[in-house]
Amino acid sequence: MDDDAAFIEQCRAAVERRLADLTPDRAERPRRLGEAARYALLSPGKRFRPMLTLLAAREFGAEPASALDVACAYEMVHAASLILDDLPCMDDANLRRGRATTHREFDEATAILASVGLLNRAFGVVAEAPGLSAALRAELGGRLSQAVGFTGLVAGQAMDLDDRGHDRSSAELELLNHRKTGVLLVAAAEAGAVIAGAGADAVGHVGEFARHLGLAFQIHDDLIDVQGGAEAGKDLGKDAGMTTVVSALGVDGARAALQTHLAAAEAALAAAGARQRLLAPYVIGLFEARKAAA
Amino acid sequence: MDDDAAFIEQCRAAVERRLADLTPDRAERPRRLGEAARYALLSPGKRFRPMLTLLAAREFGAEPASALDVACAYEMVHAASLILDDLPCMDDANLRRGRATTHREFDEATAILASVGLLNRAFGVVAEAPGLSAALRAELGGRLSQAVGFTGLVAGQAMDLDDRGHDRSSAELELLNHRKTGVLLVAAAEAGAVIAGAGADAVGHVGEFARHLGLAFQIHDDLIDVQGGAEAGKDLGKDAGMTTVVSALGVDGARAALQTHLAAAEAALAAAGARQRLLAPYVIGLFEARKAAA
Repeated sequence: MDDDAAFIEQCRAAVERRLADLTPDRAERPRRLGEAARYALLSPGKRFRPMLTLLAAREFGAEPASALDVACAYEMVHAASLILDDLPCMDDANLRRGRATTHREFDEATAILASVGLLNRAFGVVAEAPGLSAALRAELGGRLSQAVGFTGLVAGQAMDLDDRGHDRSSAELELLNHRKTGVLLVAAAEAGAVIAGAGADAVGHVGEFARHLGLAFQIHDDLIDVQGGAEAGKDLGKDAGMTTVVSALGVDGARAALQTHLAAAEAALAAAGARQRLLAPYVIGLFEARKAAA
Repeated sequence: MDDDAAFIEQCRAAVERRLADLTPDRAERPRRLGEAARYALLSPGKRFRPMLTLLAAREFGAEPASALDVACAYEMVHAASLILDDLPCMDDANLRRGRATTHREFDEATAILASVGLLNRAFGVVAEAPGLSAALRAELGGRLSQAVGFTGLVAGQAMDLDDRGHDRSSAELELLNHRKTGVLLVAAAEAGAVIAGAGADAVGHVGEFARHLGLAFQIHDDLIDVQGGAEAGKDLGKDAGMTTVVSALGVDGARAALQTHLAAAEAALAAAGARQRLLAPYVIGLFEARKAAA
């Protein structure tokens, strides 16, 4: 377990270093654009999506290093989506990860362009990922686009904005949460399995694992939003007036749903035939860190 | 020449049909997002970028059909960039191509998400373009990302916003115009040559052709902005207070620069070893159409 923890930490450190390498050079003009992209991408974060890619790759026998650039692409897309979520015309948030949101630190136009630049860079990084066959790079580009697109992350954000006026059913909420968060986690985890050459069934099970994990984390976030303190490092109470799993099921019901999703995630990982050497301790570690912070 | 004109028109019609096929289905939820994407992408336009891809492919012996999806991807990126350019925090434009801009017709959040969705879709379309090898699809994805990214279109828009307070030198203007317009034209034309299997030198010359053509069109746009009437179909006088080639060189100087770029474009095309069967009449046709409308 100590070896596992050390290896997980090595992976996270590798992601941090590679993200810094892959962002625009500080000397590149216009500087403000590059600074905004670096600010959004390199702010402290748990690097959940790239870690899923690296550990899923490892789970099926690949060296995490072979999946490093693709893993970083998923973090770029995530950072790009957070910039947009926080904009005045969307969630109008001032704080993110304990710091000013990108449009507050810079300006709205620069924030939007940094977001688009990061999304675009993610596709470039996947298309040119060293050590992967052209067939894999093309497949992974297509998969990333599916996850982000009009049936994925972008649609999730649009649904979130559209539906705020009315109560959401449980099924609507699950679709919304899946698209807003889960779809990228699923694609990130699947990408790792694909890079490792896992079969289609195994890739699908790994995706299921990530989907349930994502829903669990979303519920966890909703619980923090209701109960959390300043440690959460972002604007609290932003979900007030919106239907969430917590408002639909109550705190106890939400906690039960969270446990159900975690059990389903574990079962999916077992069905995938993964060795579960690192993903399981990684996930346990994440939840422990969250409990300690909440 | 009649055959050429008919063939060019066939290509344009093929682009229109394929663009409609590649956009989100009308039934897809959330509908408003898909509608905004269709509104921005399918509004009348000359389809300049995809036509460059198709005709460059043809110029080097490929069937235009083999380049159709990649060509459409370039129109998606162009439409995505226009949505952003028009936003309140950027050019704050109300009219585009004679119709309300996307954020005026829908709302700002929907417009931003439609833009991001279109950019993202472009990469998916390239990654999955039928009939092209995985090696080509991966290469074309990397090339598209280079054109859009932190040294391309996104940087151009950021520079345009940053620099408005001060006078621009001729060299600064040319870099700005290249990034704002030329870089995508260059990449679109090069993509066609790459698909046709042209050598690296020929691809570079085709890019030079498109770069000079782009600068010529930019000057032409600046001239229209100074002199044009309501036919231009967009907000006029928006460039007032900004340095343009026209304000730097005067109307006559700008016209001379335009001719210089057109001559250089022709020379580059000859150097590329292209047969110039269709690109030359296409470009002549474009300028004739513009003169007739102005």
